[in-house]
Amino acid sequence: MKSQNILIVSAHAADFVWRAGGTIAKYIKNGANVSLVILSYGARGESNDLWKQEGQTLENVKNIRYGEIKQAAEIIGVTDMEIWDYKDYPMDLNEERLDQMAKKIREVKPYHIITHAFGDAFNPDHPAVAKFVHQASVMAVSAGVRMEGLPNITQTRIFGFEPHQTEISNFTPDTIIDITDTFEIKKKAMQCFKAQNHLIEYYGERAKMRGNHARRISGNKDYKYAESFMRFFPYVGGELV
Amino acid sequence: MKSQNILIVSAHAADFVWRAGGTIAKYIKNGANVSLVILSYGARGESNDLWKQEGQTLENVKNIRYGEIKQAAEIIGVTDMEIWDYKDYPMDLNEERLDQMAKKIREVKPYHIITHAFGDAFNPDHPAVAKFVHQASVMAVSAGVRMEGLPNITQTRIFGFEPHQTEISNFTPDTIIDITDTFEIKKKAMQCFKAQNHLIEYYGERAKMRGNHARRISGNKDYKYAESFMRFFPYVGGELV
Amino acid sequence: MKSQNILIVSAHAADFVWRAGGTIAKYIKNGANVSLVILSYGARGESNDLWKQEGQTLENVKNIRYGEIKQAAEIIGVTDMEIWDYKDYPMDLNEERLDQMAKKIREVKPYHIITHAFGDAFNPDHPAVAKFVHQASVMAVSAGVRMEGLPNITQTRIFGFEPHQTEISNFTPDTIIDITDTFEIKKKAMQCFKAQNHLIEYYGERAKMRGNHARRISGNKDYKYAESFMRFFPYVGGELV
Amino acid sequence: MKSQNILIVSAHAADFVWRAGGTIAKYIKNGANVSLVILSYGARGESNDLWKQEGQTLENVKNIRYGEIKQAAEIIGVTDMEIWDYKDYPMDLNEERLDQMAKKIREVKPYHIITHAFGDAFNPDHPAVAKFVHQASVMAVSAGVRMEGLPNITQTRIFGFEPHQTEISNFTPDTIIDITDTFEIKKKAMQCFKAQNHLIEYYGERAKMRGNHARRISGNKDYKYAESFMRFFPYVGGELV
Amino acid sequence: MKSQNILIVSAHAADFVWRAGGTIAKYIKNGANVSLVILSYGARGESNDLWKQEGQTLENVKNIRYGEIKQAAEIIGVTDMEIWDYKDYPMDLNEERLDQMAKKIREVKPYHIITHAFGDAFNPDHPAVAKFVHQASVMAVSAGVRMEGLPNITQTRIFGFEPHQTEISNFTPDTIIDITDTFEIKKKAMQCFKAQNHLIEYYGERAKMRGNHARRISGNKDYKYAESFMRFFPYVGGELV
Amino acid sequence: MKSQNILIVSAHAADFVWRAGGTIAKYIKNGANVSLVILSYGARGESNDLWKQEGQTLENVKNIRYGEIKQAAEIIGVTDMEIWDYKDYPMDLNEERLDQMAKKIREVKPYHIITHAFGDAFNPDHPAVAKFVHQASVMAVSAGVRMEGLPNITQTRIFGFEPHQTEISNFTPDTIIDITDTFEIKKKAMQCFKAQNHLIEYYGERAKMRGNHARRISGNKDYKYAESFMRFFPYVGGELV
Repeated sequence: MKSQNILIVSAHAADFVWRAGGTIAKYIKNGANVSLVILSYGARGESNDLWKQEGQTLENVKNIRYGEIKQAAEIIGVTDMEIWDYKDYPMDLNEERLDQMAKKIREVKPYHIITHAFGDAFNPDHPAVAKFVHQASVMAVSAGVRMEGLPNITQTRIFGFEPHQTEISNFTPDTIIDITDTFEIKKKAMQCFKAQNHLIEYYGERAKMRGNHARRISGNKDYKYAESFMRFFPYVGGELV
Repeated sequence: MKSQNILIVSAHAADFVWRAGGTIAKYIKNGANVSLVILSYGARGESNDLWKQEGQTLENVKNIRYGEIKQAAEIIGVTDMEIWDYKDYPMDLNEERLDQMAKKIREVKPYHIITHAFGDAFNPDHPAVAKFVHQASVMAVSAGVRMEGLPNITQTRIFGFEPHQTEISNFTPDTIIDITDTFEIKKKAMQCFKAQNHLIEYYGERAKMRGNHARRISGNKDYKYAESFMRFFPYVGGELV
Repeated sequence: MKSQNILIVSAHAADFVWRAGGTIAKYIKNGANVSLVILSYGARGESNDLWKQEGQTLENVKNIRYGEIKQAAEIIGVTDMEIWDYKDYPMDLNEERLDQMAKKIREVKPYHIITHAFGDAFNPDHPAVAKFVHQASVMAVSAGVRMEGLPNITQTRIFGFEPHQTEISNFTPDTIIDITDTFEIKKKAMQCFKAQNHLIEYYGERAKMRGNHARRISGNKDYKYAESFMRFFPYVGGELV
Repeated sequence: MKSQNILIVSAHAADFVWRAGGTIAKYIKNGANVSLVILSYGARGESNDLWKQEGQTLENVKNIRYGEIKQAAEIIGVTDMEIWDYKDYPMDLNEERLDQMAKKIREVKPYHIITHAFGDAFNPDHPAVAKFVHQASVMAVSAGVRMEGLPNITQTRIFGFEPHQTEISNFTPDTIIDITDTFEIKKKAMQCFKAQNHLIEYYGERAKMRGNHARRISGNKDYKYAESFMRFFPYVGGELV
Repeated sequence: MKSQNILIVSAHAADFVWRAGGTIAKYIKNGANVSLVILSYGARGESNDLWKQEGQTLENVKNIRYGEIKQAAEIIGVTDMEIWDYKDYPMDLNEERLDQMAKKIREVKPYHIITHAFGDAFNPDHPAVAKFVHQASVMAVSAGVRMEGLPNITQTRIFGFEPHQTEISNFTPDTIIDITDTFEIKKKAMQCFKAQNHLIEYYGERAKMRGNHARRISGNKDYKYAESFMRFFPYVGGELV
Repeated sequence: MKSQNILIVSAHAADFVWRAGGTIAKYIKNGANVSLVILSYGARGESNDLWKQEGQTLENVKNIRYGEIKQAAEIIGVTDMEIWDYKDYPMDLNEERLDQMAKKIREVKPYHIITHAFGDAFNPDHPAVAKFVHQASVMAVSAGVRMEGLPNITQTRIFGFEPHQTEISNFTPDTIIDITDTFEIKKKAMQCFKAQNHLIEYYGERAKMRGNHARRISGNKDYKYAESFMRFFPYVGGELV
């Protein structure tokens, strides 16, 4: 992991924490260069509790979300973060934005991208972002997609987050990452999103469940907590893993 | 790879060479302990050319096959080889044989098993062996499956070989292994099977095709030849690969 | 069913009749509050016979379709009907229209939505509408999607119609509704679409076929006619059904 | 549920508790007639901890398992229980046993059968039992399968249990049953299996996870705990559910 | 079709009529050499109405079935018919029977085999026969599978029949055969199975439904009735069809 | 093939050569009327080597591509070719372009369309074109889609090209066409694309691989080279093929 460039693309404010907070913290702890792009504040689609407040405004929701994101990112150790402030629910991922993402990929030259997977039964923004990042990653490879000063790069590995209800979202975990060492960090980062208490418990138990799976599959009893992902492309390497 | 125990289970005489010869050679070269189990001589199902000879006998076919296997195994560097001499086409994988396989798995304590994948449009023995090895691997884990002197072990990773016609055999490669360094060994090992010249060319070009895919997916230009596999279980580990 | 709010979303003029006429009639007969939204007259894509007439105009086609729809809706008992007059073939389901649909869902507060399923081998409008209704239903749930005077609601159950050629449209019926009592109503409603005689026979026999399936699966001999649907989400309830 | 006959078929001793204990307790509480068939003690495949004891014997393991099953069944309220004492890991489900199962189905005349689903990544006995029960249920329907005194019945609804690792076992929940009222019973029943503490916690959290899904899908906030199942055949009935 | 050898393998007495009667009649009319193998009388699984008669015996059921088969085969024009009298429900397709089938395939040297497809939601014998014929066809190709006087042949094309409930049986029609010219023959042949009136109507309307699909897909208005099939292997030929 | 109208739709300049050059050459040789539509020069996505040249311009890339296309088309024998000069990577296939394509389909009245298949792991333009051509083909059938002077036609058969990495692109070949007679023409046509030497070898070996598959599946030893395709709709015809 040391010195690897990692790009995280999160559709809404908190997605990167619930779904990959432990893995990101681990990469940072081990010396990776993590860049985080948050496409939207999730003000429309993922801020339900904030809108229960009388007289709530979009501006205020964004401010609160910004505070939460900032705090969570700090706990995880992310120092390079951008919020692109797209509108969510629905998210309009047009050609101009595709260029913006392809450009970002060329700038970061990521060894891995971690983003949403292709299915989500209750969140159409997530698969849209999966398709968007995939397409941008292919554009980033092509020499004919001209971006002054940013030469084309080679294909990036991409991993998709676990959606909330995996089985009805065509999500089959093929990659399970041990986060035993960074689970406490993830927990603290989750707690920044005060209005979503039920999710803190949910994703805590999810990490324990994946830890159970990790032990059964690998025989390694040291795995206590884990996060799972779904590869966009096959693994290529020098040995079986 | 160094010092890893690897178990190869090959349904017929030459399967391990066509489908994984380069990977096995690489493991051996790097100091792995490779155990090879060949379930049958493939005398009925995979010795077509030998049977064209007038007056051919089963005994003689097995003898010829034995010579070829031995020579190929030597070229690849395999020193621990067993031939269980099951009848093939069809292969009767009964409960007693399941015990034999589970026992072998406990003896070898493999870090990886490499065997057939679950589909093969033109070879029913191959999926039968996939199911057989999978079931034996689960039995090997269970403490209640008593084998005197052979305690239960933890779950083994299992990888399935590429079948001959992948797309119509439900084979999706999720693991591509670079065999650039050992392709020449694979080629020589393939040439032991003199009667099957067309396969030597076929699997040579297949390795080149997988090398092409490996380069496109990874961006690594050094990959010239590769072999592909399909995992039985998700990858579990400390980092994304 | 009594007092349940049901929303039907039909891509073209007659879809709701061919595919769910018996089920809708049954709900109405049993006291449900059915709201019908017809997105287009189907003037371009589903009025072939009308266009065979010399000098035919779009306006005239729409007029004829309107008469047919009105009559069929009356026979079925629908009293709350809207025709949104979108252009069909192709159908542009943009963000503004997504808002319109989400708003409608909040207004109706449906217990069930019945609309198109996700696949249709020969009608791209149908899967587009499935995706559109699904996305609008998720927006309707989200408190941050602000629609003055229309608070967010809970997730609606959604059921997809049978497409014309089911097997090549990824349609697997998981819900089969007995329409024995209302089949005659459906038949009469179908007969309003005079120019499409072959479909009247086709969907009559389809209802008989589903009746046969209903008997075989359930053992209930009283089922003579049925319609089938495909759920968007799992069934949740207090007992197995 | 009242007066419905329900047949539970459990491959090993404790399967019915982990996977459907809350649902079974609910049916019994509401007056259903539940018959439980346990095919094996799970002595070989699901009694790992017992075998850690020095000098353990098969007979003793079965005795302990018997005590646990009896106690758990009592807590859940099952009064009609049979243990067929098949050997497990692997389970030989031959033609004679198929007759035994078909006969049992005719005797019980179940409205629902609850048993294993068709996939299980780490337990080949479970899919084998799914296939076995399915086949027996079809035989039970056929008048030509003669069983003196036991006339053929109509097709039974069948529901498959959740396997341990759902996503890699082709398990897609299509039926989620609220067990909020009987979760405490399930918990107590699980605690009978003292040697499997980690599973008690695992399936407790699983029930909470399914409760979360049940709330999101249905909008019903009263659902706290749930169990999920996978239908073998479509739902057939008089209304959408 | 002229002079082509065609082998039909029917699990039970009447399967070949319901599912492929029109296609078989057409081949015969056009000069093909059709060989029919019926594996069982379907006495246990597909003779429900006969068993309703007081004092019915297996022998008598077989006799009645024999009469029906003979008559239907004559109407269709089949002159080469064998009934292997296997027990059905379940069908034991052991190694000896596999040899018998492989031998038959070598004798007939079929250009096409027509048999059951790989899925059937309510008839486990049908997928078992699909697997059996597939495996025998592969054995027939292999020179090492020695059958005195019967040299190995090349791979045969195999087509699977439509099961009764296609969508829940994983049946996707990829081949639709016009039977407009022989539909009347099929109808008469179906009428030989007097006790199964409902199926005569069912498969008559099914043929009309497939005729409708054939017209929509091809644009050929002359197609009135059709039967559909599912290939076991890709089409290979000199031009697109 | 003689006198059949064939429409080829190629997303980028060279796609039609790599993927179907042998089949197209065969159709032309046998007297078919082939119309070729090339949607883009592939200047952004498929001209990597040209952009390595210092000071390269879009105009110049298009000119070079034009020369290559023209030469390749001549070698294959295509005389009716249009280049629509869409921008690629990404390709904006809007409603106006959909009309253009539907119109073209009505003009050509093709017996077959050959274009891209629905999946491509590393080229989002290809599935987009598959969807586009499919939708246009359905519009072309509909009488209500008015195009002055161009009456609606019947549904066209559509075949999808092989993508570069088939197994991870959901490509299952169901149609394999022998190109032994025209492989030399394909080779020469491929050589027009000088900057893509590695693809010439890749697609040469791919044709040999498909030839191997063609022999195994059909038993016809004369097949040396082949191309494979994936049908959009079932085959409909008068006999099994």
